[in-house]
Amino acid sequence: MKLVVAIVSDSDSTKITESLLAAGYPGPTRINTVGGFLRKGNATLLLGTDDDRVESAIDVIRSAVEDRGVPADPNQKRATIFVLNTSRFIRV
Amino acid sequence: MKLVVAIVSDSDSTKITESLLAAGYPGPTRINTVGGFLRKGNATLLLGTDDDRVESAIDVIRSAVEDRGVPADPNQKRATIFVLNTSRFIRV
Amino acid sequence: MKLVVAIVSDSDSTKITESLLAAGYPGPTRINTVGGFLRKGNATLLLGTDDDRVESAIDVIRSAVEDRGVPADPNQKRATIFVLNTSRFIRV
Repeated sequence: MKLVVAIVSDSDSTKITESLLAAGYPGPTRINTVGGFLRKGNATLLLGTDDDRVESAIDVIRSAVEDRGVPADPNQKRATIFVLNTSRFIRV
Repeated sequence: MKLVVAIVSDSDSTKITESLLAAGYPGPTRINTVGGFLRKGNATLLLGTDDDRVESAIDVIRSAVEDRGVPADPNQKRATIFVLNTSRFIRV
Repeated sequence: MKLVVAIVSDSDSTKITESLLAAGYPGPTRINTVGGFLRKGNATLLLGTDDDRVESAIDVIRSAVEDRGVPADPNQKRATIFVLNTSRFIRV
């Protein structure tokens, strides 16, 4: 089981959540965050997923943010994704 | 040292925190989060603990949420817990 | 790539962010959190960084919080830092 931590713009987070649900993932847990140099509001999404579905989850997130078209600044990134190993995963 | 990430319902988070303190754990760091399909408010708790006290921390969390009795929907989960390895842990 | 999770006091978080930027790190993502026994407001900062720059990032955080001088209670800690391994890191 992996924990996917995706830092995304506020405006993309609903679309990403809907895309993940449509692809059969659980709804991610959303944290309101503030980030980066411009101190803009963004969102950090937490998603637990099986190891073999991590790449597909990344693809879903990528597709959701790329749908917005090319950013004004081509160096601007729209999502920063960390994938963490878990040593235990439990639902009670 | 492990980092325990527990996603719990808002209404359980105070009880879990009190139970952890009573069991000798440090007070967890609480993040207000929004999660899951129903987009309900929940809380994400961060708790650093020694490897050999992780299972006991999970038991404390489980007991605290089970105290509420059986949920209306038996498939409903009351806590999702990820345990992460840390490569460094420092307090300054 | 590592994910640094630093739990710091609210009053230190802006200074830490500025110090990290001045040292060439990306602006960390800031989460407003509540923590510890006194349930005081604090902040949790997320910073992705290369493995070989983790120690330097910790030094920057340490310097920023130590600048405030010795706390009234010498046992009081001003930052709790977890360093997590990532199995993937992607920016899209």
